[in-house]
Amino acid sequence: MSELTIMDDLRHILLSGDADKLLNLISNEHPADVAALLPDFSAEEIGTLLVMMPLDVRADVIGYFSIELQVDVVLTLDQDILIELIREMPNDERADLFNQLPLEKQQQLMSDMKKSERDDIFKLASYSEDRVGSIMTSDYAVVDAKMTAVQGIDFLRKTGADKETIYITYVVDGARRLIGTVSLRKMIMADPDEKIAHFMTTDPVSIHADEPQEEAARLISRYDLLALPVINGGDKLVGIVTYDDAMDVAEEEATEDIHKSATVGKLESGLRAASPFSLYRSRVMWLVVLVFANIFTGAGIAYFEDTIATHLALLFFMPLLVASAGNAGSQSATLMVRGLATGEVSGKDWFRLLGKEVLVAGALGLTMALAVMAVGILRAGIDIAVVVALTMIIVVLVGSLIGLGLPFLLEKFGSDPATASTPLITTIADVCGVLIYFGIASWYLSDVIKAPI
Amino acid sequence: MSELTIMDDLRHILLSGDADKLLNLISNEHPADVAALLPDFSAEEIGTLLVMMPLDVRADVIGYFSIELQVDVVLTLDQDILIELIREMPNDERADLFNQLPLEKQQQLMSDMKKSERDDIFKLASYSEDRVGSIMTSDYAVVDAKMTAVQGIDFLRKTGADKETIYITYVVDGARRLIGTVSLRKMIMADPDEKIAHFMTTDPVSIHADEPQEEAARLISRYDLLALPVINGGDKLVGIVTYDDAMDVAEEEATEDIHKSATVGKLESGLRAASPFSLYRSRVMWLVVLVFANIFTGAGIAYFEDTIATHLALLFFMPLLVASAGNAGSQSATLMVRGLATGEVSGKDWFRLLGKEVLVAGALGLTMALAVMAVGILRAGIDIAVVVALTMIIVVLVGSLIGLGLPFLLEKFGSDPATASTPLITTIADVCGVLIYFGIASWYLSDVIKAPI
Repeated sequence: MSELTIMDDLRHILLSGDADKLLNLISNEHPADVAALLPDFSAEEIGTLLVMMPLDVRADVIGYFSIELQVDVVLTLDQDILIELIREMPNDERADLFNQLPLEKQQQLMSDMKKSERDDIFKLASYSEDRVGSIMTSDYAVVDAKMTAVQGIDFLRKTGADKETIYITYVVDGARRLIGTVSLRKMIMADPDEKIAHFMTTDPVSIHADEPQEEAARLISRYDLLALPVINGGDKLVGIVTYDDAMDVAEEEATEDIHKSATVGKLESGLRAASPFSLYRSRVMWLVVLVFANIFTGAGIAYFEDTIATHLALLFFMPLLVASAGNAGSQSATLMVRGLATGEVSGKDWFRLLGKEVLVAGALGLTMALAVMAVGILRAGIDIAVVVALTMIIVVLVGSLIGLGLPFLLEKFGSDPATASTPLITTIADVCGVLIYFGIASWYLSDVIKAPI
Repeated sequence: MSELTIMDDLRHILLSGDADKLLNLISNEHPADVAALLPDFSAEEIGTLLVMMPLDVRADVIGYFSIELQVDVVLTLDQDILIELIREMPNDERADLFNQLPLEKQQQLMSDMKKSERDDIFKLASYSEDRVGSIMTSDYAVVDAKMTAVQGIDFLRKTGADKETIYITYVVDGARRLIGTVSLRKMIMADPDEKIAHFMTTDPVSIHADEPQEEAARLISRYDLLALPVINGGDKLVGIVTYDDAMDVAEEEATEDIHKSATVGKLESGLRAASPFSLYRSRVMWLVVLVFANIFTGAGIAYFEDTIATHLALLFFMPLLVASAGNAGSQSATLMVRGLATGEVSGKDWFRLLGKEVLVAGALGLTMALAVMAVGILRAGIDIAVVVALTMIIVVLVGSLIGLGLPFLLEKFGSDPATASTPLITTIADVCGVLIYFGIASWYLSDVIKAPI
């Protein structure tokens, strides 16, 4: 069925209140697909449709909305329906939602919940949003090391219904310190009477709740984990991060890095959902900063006004020289920033990479010098062609080295190396390019008796 | 233990051939960590160390190497050791490795393998490297819909040992067509005597082996799958893609997009491992193309030489105006390219986004015009300040719209929208910026009786 027909049906269901028709319509759809149909409706309409769905479907569907839409929608729901929904949601998602609700709504909800529910929400909601604690869930499964394999499986059958996963289970001591993990696969494959203590993995990979969330994603990807246990200050197990949350984090982080490298600030939602004002705010700061940075390039040109006035033909080559420095620089910077982000490259590789970069950039500069030399001779004679070719080699080398060095420097000073990488390097390369070009031109052409213009 | 100490120990083990010491050293290390230690050794040395490890560890460790290093290392191994290793490797990894071996080595290996092994390798190795077929494994678990839950679990216990996962199993008909999937969790939680047919998921999400591999990653992420079944032309189940391979694909794709957007071509390995020549080759093409594209900017400047000669003060503002057009354009392009890549934005959003972009870019242009107006008055008087401010509004708007439009156009013509996005847009914005700036200046300043220089 086409998306348009479904939208018409949904509109009809809203008018008629025909819940059976809705169930019929969505019964074969994945919650992610149902959620994708709804954002074109108003928050009230979405609320009405959600209430017609069974509770478990409702809790699944809302989890696929952006957090802003979740807030808008739940604020249209009656208090008792909201409580029911919040109880049904996975506890990492409900903590995120709770965090974004207005304070008075938070207080209303709290007064209607049990103490254990309140404590769980408070615990998860207390981590700031870029930390591991904010993406973990406390619905993990636990088994006892003294159980046999078959007892472990039976225990999971009884306790596992509302756990995030039963494929990886955790073994803790009396103080809830993590002492091992065991996969359901191992329990199935083991001799039924073998004790879990004998085949569990001791000393498992884990992460602290205060670490950055992308570190959790990196560990899960590196060790191909289904879930990563999260511990707090006292080495106590407090939650797990599952691979599907890690995938979302990795995608968010890549988007943030890509945006950052083009001076686009953090957006709470995607491009399509973002308001004009939030887009403006995310873009304006760096644009203005770079305007003022470019004044230096203008000043460089102004400084060489006499040389330019005498050799106006030089201007023809300025854009391609300056752009080449910037382009080569952003290539190096991009390679470096991504290498640092994926962990392929680290600070200790700096000298090895420097040597390689000099070689590569030298070869690139030489290639491009040959290309512009031909254009230069045709357009402006041999003298200016020499200046242009010489400049090209130097600016490509300088641009590349700036591109290689700046991300390292930013990291050293505690900034994200992705920050503004491309435009910042282009701007720095612009200034250097202009100074080098007209510097060489002034020096070389002042020796030439008659300038070829 | 520090990494340096371990490296020293490994060097010592190489000299002494003390396999026990090696086992001792790596017994508590994850294969990914062992693999990370080795690339500083020569291929022969790595081969020697691998042969000292137990076969299963050896097969795990080599899977974490880059494919180039895998090839270099296995070419140092004796034929019988290589056959043993290839048999032990997961069959998606061994097909990838096989694909990269020299032809004569492939033939030697084939003649020493069983027909079923040969067929499996040929099948998997026949897909080109960016397709789903190349990342799938044929080691998936199958159950029968007529089995009860407890029979299904018993069957997995017997047949599951060498399967990639037993947490998701597949139900096929006599012609091996996929008719359902069932999770081990459901089997554990179900009434032991309930038939799998009753609780399996019919009509599961699946993908064709010829689809692009990033589409598999997108489906796994969207539906939070542990594994995605892969079918061929006849709807037959031919393999599965697991979440951990999807994570690797998503990371590779993000890296490729990030590189592409800065005109860096495809690299077979990471920055650290890449040879100077492969880096040169990945960067040179676009740099040279952009040099020639920038000749248009130079020609634009040359066209307005008279205006420039009369008002040399105009040159001071050229870099910041041209750069602002490029920066605003690459912001828009970056937002758009990433939105298209993550699926948040699609072609049908174009008009809605256009309206929003005009609003945002107009506001950005106005803000920046105010900023440069002040500089303009101080530096060059009111007339040039007006020209500069007016130009700023127009070039930011034009740059942003080019940035918004070009990725859509590239996609329409079947190119990847990420291709060269930033430098290409900067270059186009340069040309437009120069023409608009000096165009406005010629028109406006020719009306001014006395030019303020």
